[in-house]
Amino acid sequence: MPRTTETASFQFNHTMIRVRDPDVSVKFYTEILGMDLLSKNNMGDYTLYFLAFDQGQNYKDISEEEKDKAKFAREGVLELTHNHGTETDASFAGYSSGNSDPGRGFGHIAITVNDVEEACARFETLGVQFKKRPQDGKMRHIAFILDPDGYWIEVVPSSLKL
Amino acid sequence: MPRTTETASFQFNHTMIRVRDPDVSVKFYTEILGMDLLSKNNMGDYTLYFLAFDQGQNYKDISEEEKDKAKFAREGVLELTHNHGTETDASFAGYSSGNSDPGRGFGHIAITVNDVEEACARFETLGVQFKKRPQDGKMRHIAFILDPDGYWIEVVPSSLKL
Repeated sequence: MPRTTETASFQFNHTMIRVRDPDVSVKFYTEILGMDLLSKNNMGDYTLYFLAFDQGQNYKDISEEEKDKAKFAREGVLELTHNHGTETDASFAGYSSGNSDPGRGFGHIAITVNDVEEACARFETLGVQFKKRPQDGKMRHIAFILDPDGYWIEVVPSSLKL
Repeated sequence: MPRTTETASFQFNHTMIRVRDPDVSVKFYTEILGMDLLSKNNMGDYTLYFLAFDQGQNYKDISEEEKDKAKFAREGVLELTHNHGTETDASFAGYSSGNSDPGRGFGHIAITVNDVEEACARFETLGVQFKKRPQDGKMRHIAFILDPDGYWIEVVPSSLKL
């Protein structure tokens, strides 16, 4: 039950991060994480890519137009912003992960999975970079992988009890 | 239909941002945005706050334990990290919103709402800071508000077609 009628329609729709090279990032989020690309929107100087996990939305069976429309009607959407040119700009310093000064603020996005060990074994095979493997450090049940820009992605068991 | 059986269980569970003063931030996300606090976890030097919009989960009617467990079983969760002491540290410079150099990377989180004008009129009454009001700039159908740490929150109509 939403707190008040004024906020009853509110959904936490998406999280936006900037990416240097959309070809590399979209490949990572679709082929390695298994998200679907819902739309690609060229806005002039930049292009937006909206991705989400298919959680019963049947993205494989609906039209591009329906998929595009669906992206603002759910939670758990990831928006990637590509400012044109960064992918070929040798002087581009890269984006901040938000986890060191200056620039600390945002920390990570997180995916929950049934089996962290199994998911991480697959990530390892696919050449994904790790910030923390399940066996490293104190928190054995979770891992952190890095996306192509170095953003941290926490991998958490759906059954975790903190 | 998820892309492969290996990623079938994956969900985009949460996004984590650091906050200076959890009392102020939790009040903002619950009372102004209407999210529910699912759990508060003291981890020693820091405390985690997990929040989400009630989308049929009946948070008002389930036990604290069920609510706590539910937080890793859904999408659209917001995790706030409070590193103890920042709220009283006069020398603390604040967190980066991710939208200026150095520190550019993360951009914003976004909520979808039925009626942006109505939602923004209420935010205005409640004293919320705006980065962009609906009537400012080119994109009249969206707004950006600021959370207590200055993170950008986009306010988007659920019916938006990009």
